[in-house]
Order: sequence, then structure tokens, then C-alpha cells
Amino acid sequence: MKTTIQNLKGFRDFLPADMAFQNWFYQNLKEVSQSYGFQEYEGPTVEPLDLYAAKSGEELVKKQAFTFEDKSGKTVALRPEMTPTLARMISQNENDLTFPVKWFTYGRRFRYESPQKGRGREFFQWDIDILGPDNPEADGEIITIAVNFYQKLKLTPSEVKIKINDRKYLESRLKEVGIPNDKISPLFKIIDKKDKVDEKIFKEMIKELSISDGQIDWISEILSDKKGYERSDWLKSIYSYLDRTGVLPFIEFDASIVRGLDYYTGTVFEGWDAGGNFRAIWGGGRYDNLTSDVGSKNKIPGVGFAMGDMVMEEVLKFYNKYPSLDVNKTKVLVTIFSPELFDDSLKLSLKLRQSGVNCELYPDPNAKLDKQLKYADKKGIPFAVIIGPEEVASDTVMVKNLKTQSQKKVFSNSITPMING
Amino acid sequence: MKTTIQNLKGFRDFLPADMAFQNWFYQNLKEVSQSYGFQEYEGPTVEPLDLYAAKSGEELVKKQAFTFEDKSGKTVALRPEMTPTLARMISQNENDLTFPVKWFTYGRRFRYESPQKGRGREFFQWDIDILGPDNPEADGEIITIAVNFYQKLKLTPSEVKIKINDRKYLESRLKEVGIPNDKISPLFKIIDKKDKVDEKIFKEMIKELSISDGQIDWISEILSDKKGYERSDWLKSIYSYLDRTGVLPFIEFDASIVRGLDYYTGTVFEGWDAGGNFRAIWGGGRYDNLTSDVGSKNKIPGVGFAMGDMVMEEVLKFYNKYPSLDVNKTKVLVTIFSPELFDDSLKLSLKLRQSGVNCELYPDPNAKLDKQLKYADKKGIPFAVIIGPEEVASDTVMVKNLKTQSQKKVFSNSITPMING
Repeated sequence: MKTTIQNLKGFRDFLPADMAFQNWFYQNLKEVSQSYGFQEYEGPTVEPLDLYAAKSGEELVKKQAFTFEDKSGKTVALRPEMTPTLARMISQNENDLTFPVKWFTYGRRFRYESPQKGRGREFFQWDIDILGPDNPEADGEIITIAVNFYQKLKLTPSEVKIKINDRKYLESRLKEVGIPNDKISPLFKIIDKKDKVDEKIFKEMIKELSISDGQIDWISEILSDKKGYERSDWLKSIYSYLDRTGVLPFIEFDASIVRGLDYYTGTVFEGWDAGGNFRAIWGGGRYDNLTSDVGSKNKIPGVGFAMGDMVMEEVLKFYNKYPSLDVNKTKVLVTIFSPELFDDSLKLSLKLRQSGVNCELYPDPNAKLDKQLKYADKKGIPFAVIIGPEEVASDTVMVKNLKTQSQKKVFSNSITPMING
Repeated sequence: MKTTIQNLKGFRDFLPADMAFQNWFYQNLKEVSQSYGFQEYEGPTVEPLDLYAAKSGEELVKKQAFTFEDKSGKTVALRPEMTPTLARMISQNENDLTFPVKWFTYGRRFRYESPQKGRGREFFQWDIDILGPDNPEADGEIITIAVNFYQKLKLTPSEVKIKINDRKYLESRLKEVGIPNDKISPLFKIIDKKDKVDEKIFKEMIKELSISDGQIDWISEILSDKKGYERSDWLKSIYSYLDRTGVLPFIEFDASIVRGLDYYTGTVFEGWDAGGNFRAIWGGGRYDNLTSDVGSKNKIPGVGFAMGDMVMEEVLKFYNKYPSLDVNKTKVLVTIFSPELFDDSLKLSLKLRQSGVNCELYPDPNAKLDKQLKYADKKGIPFAVIIGPEEVASDTVMVKNLKTQSQKKVFSNSITPMING
């Protein structure tokens, strides 16, 4: 008994129906990105591990990255995220680029995680970033783009939202209640885990940093302060921007959002579904030092987000917004009546193609007509054309509408208008 | 002194101009594939090494594949080619698929080779295949598609061609001159190297198989017989097909084409440039046993080819057919006259975008107008819009054509027709 070789756990195949979703998702994010003047770029899927070692955070680098030694003995990684590659590209080309740089990309990322619904070991992510400006309008634009994408996918504020915070704001409030400098970073790491553990465990984790009970109460209060953004000029500017672009119904301030990646320096934000059926569905923020960390001579601030395809697909399904897709782009199957008449069918297929019609010639001249028609129907091809001896003699063809099962004999040069209308 | 982290040798970055070429190349192959009724699919970029071990040929698997152990201890490979993944997908889904299957894909492949012009360690390949039919018309269609792609790229028969052969034909002719069964496969491997070594070395390599001088002369004659295809019914059928699709000017019979991959069973073909400035630029063939080798219950014959982006890009450059590309899809930059008037610019940008215009709002309200106009010019954005106090007062805007440097004051609702032509 032969065994079929299987694909690796967490790695997906894309049959044509899956691919149609990918193309639809990509087309939508591309249109939104380009409508705001962003240009598309890409990078390698393999990078030196050093690129991530600096700033991506220990969990991502040590636990989740697919790393290996290549034949030259260099330790490399399948990219777990795009921002370090972007920062590298920016710093290698900083003298030739015109800033502000506004770039987007859509490609594969790799993380060794436990596969589950909405999470695989290989997935796609949309990354979109503005590099150069350090003013809040850039952050406002990036967040507005995320909302515009929601809207393009017909997702509403009662289904999805964006939680916003600013690491600098949170840091200053924590300092106000006496948290010393050296505990800010470990405390952020605990806050990042807040929604994964219950209240009691969360408090115990903080206590381990030798933070007093009184301070812990203050921290809880800070994290649940829904109006905290009013204390920060930076966040107020972003709010004002989002108000003017009309996207505030999607926005929620949440001081407990800090993001796990070490390179964020200011604004941080996460996509969530309103029903709380998923955890954070995507995330982003401001990273003002990453390009200089990977080698740029000048400080080039950046802000952007990354959104994965797998969770978004689940969100769309959950809220009944999964699109109805055209899996087959073929308009007509040109059938072959008999091997002797193969030539006539071949010629017609060439003619149809030249006039811009996506058309398929059945690839086996010996197949029975019935089998060919079944094939067209199963593949979702809307029309089939039949050319028998009678049709050849009268320069006509029989056009069969496979949905209605009606058929009509027409002159061969009248096919195109018929199938297009 | 900081050092910039570099990308890995043989791994490319795609700045927006490079990405524009990628998108153009992909769009063209997609249109050709879909015009023939092929459906798009994709697979994982990481596969179990076993998948290739069977049939891809020792050189590809042992020398060129990026292989490593994942965290579970499984030996995996970055896919060096697509056909084994396709065969795996077909065999895993054979009961649900409607045959003939006509699929195409465009994605990354990985080979540890010495990087040089037209060759990298990570590259893209277009794969297009028909699975099911074992008749020569399927091969004819696949080869016609390759020529149609040449034509779409404006490449002519004096620049590019396709060399065709059939392994079965060559095998039968070799047997006619007394080459025994067990020497056919090693002899094929030597023939595959023919154009990489000179005549003398080639003959010595054959001699090592204990093939006599007389037989070697016969082999030379067989390999240089330009009319050999007339002795094969199979090849004659393909020629007849290619004649009827009008692509024969691109076709050349070459009995020395065998291809390096072990899984080919019949027709084999390679793209070449007519000037002989490159080696084989792409290749393909018929593989009738591969899906059953990876696990399908039924024998599912296949035929297809794989064409890489890097060599084709060099070929296009060499023959001056490299396209002129639109790197920036942005139509208008909406400048910001002063921070006080930011609101007016923001509003206009939202309005333009709603009416379907790709437009960019300069992302820093504090930048000097002059700097903003320079930015638009450098990025190749054709129009800039200026809204100063006068314009705000009169509900007008100043539209500047950055190519002609002319400018015109218009009512704000008249911008769209103006920039569209």
C-alpha cells in the first residue's frame, strides 16, 4: 500500500478556491494602499538571524523563528515578520530614497507555533509603513488606512475595532505612581500578557517585580482608564485626526495595549473583533529607532502595521462577510465533437482568445462530448460551444448555456456578444 | 562605526521599481494562463525533503536544496521547484478534483547555487501544467502557451525559441544502435550536460560507459539529426498541432534536449535565446508517473513547464524588450500649505480618494511647500494640488502639472477631470 506524502503541519495548500480568496484579499489591500499613495515592495523570505536578534523580542526569535545553518555555515531565519527587512532595506538605501517613504507589501511569514484555526506556521501578512515623519498625522493616516480596509471588506464598527495606546503615555503614567525606570520594560512584558491570564495571576506576576500592592492598584486604575488619551498631547492629536477622517466609531483607547515586539517606541495599536471571539487580529505601532539599530546613519522614524491573512479570513467567516468568489475565470469551453473535427474547435479557440475571451479547448480530442460538457459544468465554466459536422458546414456553432441548459445555434462570429451579455 | 546588516548572498530585495517588474511579469503570465482556462493555485514554500528525494534528481536534492531539521526533528526543504508539490496536491485531492486539471502558479523557489547574472538562490517561477490527458494535444497546448507568452512580451522568433525532443524517441533510437537498457539513463545524464562541455570531453564521458567508438559516432549522428521528429508519431502530432496554432517559427527540434529532472517520461522542451547568449532559459516536459510516485492511486499523466523570472528579465534586457513601467500609481500629491490649513488638505484628499483617485496627502503638516513639491517630482507623481488661504476662501485649488510646471486654479470639484486628461 502506497502512502501519500503529506504537507508539513501548519503549511497550507491553496487549491484554486483558496487561491481566489488570497487574490481577493491581496487585491483589496493593494487598492487601499495605492489609493493612499503607497508603493509596493518585497524582500527575501530568508534573512540572517542577526537581523531579528536586535529588536524583535526573545519569544519571536528564540521560540518561533525557523532558523538553520545554510551550506556556508551562516545562521539564517525564515522571516517571522517583515519590519526588520523593511528597516534593513531602508538603511541600505537611505541615500537614494526620497523621504517620506510610503511602502506596502504582502507576502509570506514563518513562525513555529501550534497550528490552530486562524494560525499556521506559514501565513501571509500585509505590511504598510510610513518612514520619515515623526508627527502624529502619520500615525493617524496609518490607522485610517486600517479602518478603510475594514470598510472595503464590509466589516462594521459592531464587528471590528482598533485599540490604541502610546507606550510613552503609559510609561509616564507608570512613573507618576513611582515605578522606577528599570522596571518599566519588564512591566510592559507582563501587561502585554494581561488578556491571556486572569486578574489574580496578572497581579501576582507584577508583584514578582517587587511592586507594592498600592502601586498595583494604581496600575490597574491606569490600565482601565478609558479617557487616559486626553492626558496626552500626542494621543489627542491622533484622535483629532481620526475624528476628521471619520473613523472614530472603530477606535477605542486601551492603555493595556503595549505589543510584544521590542522595537515599538510610541503609538501602539491592535485590531480586535468587537465580539471578543478572537484575540488581537493584527497589530502595529511606531518604531523610531529600528532603522538605526540595523545600520542607518540617520534616525529614520517609522510607523506601520502588519495584518495576517489567516485570522482575517476567520473573522470574515465569523461575521458572514466571506466574499463570494469567481474561482474560474474561463468563459467558454470549446468542446471537440470528434477527432476529425478537432481542427475546427482548435481554430475557434484561437479566434476567441484573440478577441479577448478566456476560453478552454478540451485537451483530449478523443473524449466523449458528454464527458466534456460535464467537465465544463463541474468546473463552473458558464458556456460550452459545440461544433459538429452540421455546424462546420454552415459556419455556425452551437452555444450551450450550462446554467440554464438552453442552447442556440449562432454564426461563429456572434459568440462573443452572446457570452458577454 | 555601525555596520549595516546586509541581505544574504543570492537573495534579492525588491524596491518599488523591481516590484513593478515583478508585477508586470506576473500579470502577463496570469493573463496568458487564464486565456487558456488555467486556474491559479499555490503551495507551501517548505516541504518534507522526502517529496523531492523520489524523483527530482540527485543534483537538485543533494547539492542545491536548502534543507534543515525543523524543531520537531523533521528534515524539510525550501522548495527548489514546484512540480513535486503540484503532484502531491493532485494525489492528495485526486477524488475531489475534476480532470483534466489545468493549473498555474507563480512563486518563490530556492536553490543553493552560485549567484550570477540571471541566477539567484531565491527566484520566482511560473509553473503551468495539464494533468490527466496523455495525448500529444496537451503537450502542444502547453508549448503554444509558452510561445504566446513570448509574443505577449514582444519577443520574436529571431530572439527566442523552443527546442523540443521526446525522451521515448531518443531512447528508441539509442536502442536501435545497440545501447542496452541499463545504459540509457546514465547516457541521458551525459547528454543533458552536452552543451556545457566540448565535443571531445563529451565523447570521453560516453566512452566511460563502455560504449564503443562506432556507437558514439552513431549517437552523435542521432543527436544532430534535425529531422528526427519525422520518425516519431508522437512528435509529428505535436508538430502538426504547433503548425495549426501558428507558432512553428519559434520551434526547433533538438534530439540532445533531455532535461536534468528524473521524472520526465516523454516530451521534453527548453526555451533558448536565438543568439545563444544564455543557456536554457526555462524548461518543461511530460511526467506520466510523478503523481503515483508521491501517492496517487490512479496514474495521472502530466505535462507542463517552469519559467524563472531572473533569466527572463536578463533576456528582455538583452533584446531591448524590458518594459517601461509605471512605478508610482499615485496621481496627485495634496500638499499642505501651512499647519493651520492642514484640515482643508486632509478633506480634499479624502474626497479625491472617494472619487477613485490614488492620492497622497503629504504626511508632515510642518514641511515647507517647496520640499513637498520636490518630493512629488522625485517620486514621479504627475500632479500636485496646493490649497492656500486664497484658495480656501474661494473654494478653489491650484493644480500644478509637475512635468510641464504649468499651474491652473480650478474649483475643487473640477480636479478629477483635469488630472485624468
